[in-house]
Amino acid sequence: MTEFRNPDAVAKMRADFARQGAMSAMGISVADVVPGRVVLEMPFNPDFTQHHGFMHAGVITTAMDSACGFAAFTLMEEGAEVLTVEFKSTFMSPAAGDHFRFEGEIVKSGRTLTFTQGRAIAIKDGTEKTIAMLTATMMAVRGLT
Amino acid sequence: MTEFRNPDAVAKMRADFARQGAMSAMGISVADVVPGRVVLEMPFNPDFTQHHGFMHAGVITTAMDSACGFAAFTLMEEGAEVLTVEFKSTFMSPAAGDHFRFEGEIVKSGRTLTFTQGRAIAIKDGTEKTIAMLTATMMAVRGLT
Amino acid sequence: MTEFRNPDAVAKMRADFARQGAMSAMGISVADVVPGRVVLEMPFNPDFTQHHGFMHAGVITTAMDSACGFAAFTLMEEGAEVLTVEFKSTFMSPAAGDHFRFEGEIVKSGRTLTFTQGRAIAIKDGTEKTIAMLTATMMAVRGLT
Amino acid sequence: MTEFRNPDAVAKMRADFARQGAMSAMGISVADVVPGRVVLEMPFNPDFTQHHGFMHAGVITTAMDSACGFAAFTLMEEGAEVLTVEFKSTFMSPAAGDHFRFEGEIVKSGRTLTFTQGRAIAIKDGTEKTIAMLTATMMAVRGLT
Repeated sequence: MTEFRNPDAVAKMRADFARQGAMSAMGISVADVVPGRVVLEMPFNPDFTQHHGFMHAGVITTAMDSACGFAAFTLMEEGAEVLTVEFKSTFMSPAAGDHFRFEGEIVKSGRTLTFTQGRAIAIKDGTEKTIAMLTATMMAVRGLT
Repeated sequence: MTEFRNPDAVAKMRADFARQGAMSAMGISVADVVPGRVVLEMPFNPDFTQHHGFMHAGVITTAMDSACGFAAFTLMEEGAEVLTVEFKSTFMSPAAGDHFRFEGEIVKSGRTLTFTQGRAIAIKDGTEKTIAMLTATMMAVRGLT
Repeated sequence: MTEFRNPDAVAKMRADFARQGAMSAMGISVADVVPGRVVLEMPFNPDFTQHHGFMHAGVITTAMDSACGFAAFTLMEEGAEVLTVEFKSTFMSPAAGDHFRFEGEIVKSGRTLTFTQGRAIAIKDGTEKTIAMLTATMMAVRGLT
Repeated sequence: MTEFRNPDAVAKMRADFARQGAMSAMGISVADVVPGRVVLEMPFNPDFTQHHGFMHAGVITTAMDSACGFAAFTLMEEGAEVLTVEFKSTFMSPAAGDHFRFEGEIVKSGRTLTFTQGRAIAIKDGTEKTIAMLTATMMAVRGLT
């Protein structure tokens, strides 16, 4: 089983999450954290829709990016910070739902680069549907803050 | 010179933009619209940062996606709506600046799919820096609303 | 269980594969086909290396793209042809191995667009390693040939 | 004007290109090299088509990837080798033409990562058409060979 390299990783991750203004502004919270995997969730938020009333693709992406970035962070060494290098987001269905879940996980963790993948699930009347997927490259940086 | 296929495209685009909750919530506004090209802008917004105090990569992407989606829309036929199929966003530099500009333009406009590219420019003390770029596939859909 | 929409899909797919000059030139063959999933394989080919002696990233991508394109094709309606709209390929490890396997599968199949994902596995002395992953958007076109 | 950091960069690049089996197998050659930009070319090659007779999307991508990788290499320090981290390739039109040109250029060159973009142009009866575009992240590695 995968283990944390930094015993303070989860505490540090939750503290960093709390400092992400974008997460609280959008109503996104942490649902679960294990080494190499982070799950976030968000209720439908009418303040962040696009013009057909669905959640904006960029907001769905913001949540998947955060889930993947924090997943990458869980296996980084002490003193490293995580920055997003790039991601690709694919939208299979419009983001309609009462509630959304965002899963981010590591595909391969390296010293400098970590490769991750994520997905967004819309929940409507108890039925789940994968509406988007993301692959992201994350980078460990030192001395950023 | 490229011309609009739908004479009401700009008025419709501005009305759709006004209905995008995500744009007003993030403080993003329209700076310029010509056929096939849309420019948006946003002042630095402390409510949408990541945990190092930079603008969140997802927020920068949301703005580039909107610029590209609306750029695609400017050349669509009457009655068509635009949805994002997928995009890739690359982050060359952290999103530090007083003000940000987002340019979206069409690379190729087709009946069903429109290919676009965008970039994000950070402005700090009058100096401009390209901090991110995006390529996005947009789809014309009918009967959505 | 997923079923074919076109009873001739596998026969048509294998005939199309046989007509792909690029596949025979690179030594890529079909290992398995089920509805929505195609597996290809290729022995290490010294004619298609990059300059460090690994298989070229573009060749690995060509094989993943074909696996995904043919996977998408398996669920298309009669008379439809498949074209690649876009893909993103991520390289987790250099393509070193005696033999390579490429898996392509459908994430969501629609009338016009099909979303797929694939991966490349290198096999060396019996040990398997995922070296690359791909997400691709495929499009059904009619009247192409 | 951009200058080379390594005075032997072009000679090294051309030697590396000559060692890429995939380039000679596909009939791809170097047309131009300046600091931060590489142009490759290829005549139509019936051995590397897909099943409708167009050049295979993966082959077009292989050439764009090489153009971008070598462009990144031109500005790397002595002793560094270049590996592709990831790329996204978008196909605007089928790859039909007598001849193809592939342009790769640096968007931002960093010590570890270099961001590049490329495009593929098909030439038919003297008329040029951009058929595909690519964005790629390249990584400088040391001690690879």
